[in-house]
Amino acid sequence: MYKVKVYVTLRENVLDPQGNAVKQSLHSLSYREVKDVRIGKFMELTIEKSERSIDELVRDMCEKLLANTVIEDYRYEIEEVVAP
Amino acid sequence: MYKVKVYVTLRENVLDPQGNAVKQSLHSLSYREVKDVRIGKFMELTIEKSERSIDELVRDMCEKLLANTVIEDYRYEIEEVVAP
Repeated sequence: MYKVKVYVTLRENVLDPQGNAVKQSLHSLSYREVKDVRIGKFMELTIEKSERSIDELVRDMCEKLLANTVIEDYRYEIEEVVAP
Repeated sequence: MYKVKVYVTLRENVLDPQGNAVKQSLHSLSYREVKDVRIGKFMELTIEKSERSIDELVRDMCEKLLANTVIEDYRYEIEEVVAP
């Protein structure tokens, strides 16, 4: 069994309207120190062992579904866990 | 200047319909090894130094705006960066 953490972030040159909205809200709550906010996704997947390589599997899933690679970058961490 | 990474995740006992939808999509793409998907948010904030403690500041922002602490947990990492 694997626990996989996937981080999907907008590419640097892509505008982030959601992040801007959060920044404005933080400013109106008096947190004016905040200069920039970028919002991404964080996914935790539980994956069973199979004959496929876990690394390939996760990369494949990111490319096909979890990230939109035109505007997003992704990175992931794989941790093997022993089932209880 | 600080770079702060905030991870917001649903509490364990809270249902995650978005995660379930992603799991179903992965299954229909033949990734049947995937047993569970939980989706959270990942935020990168750039914050200027001020007289407030950065740790308190970030905790405050999470409690007030970035996370809904009734159903979500949060954790954060603070990194000090030297402005170029």
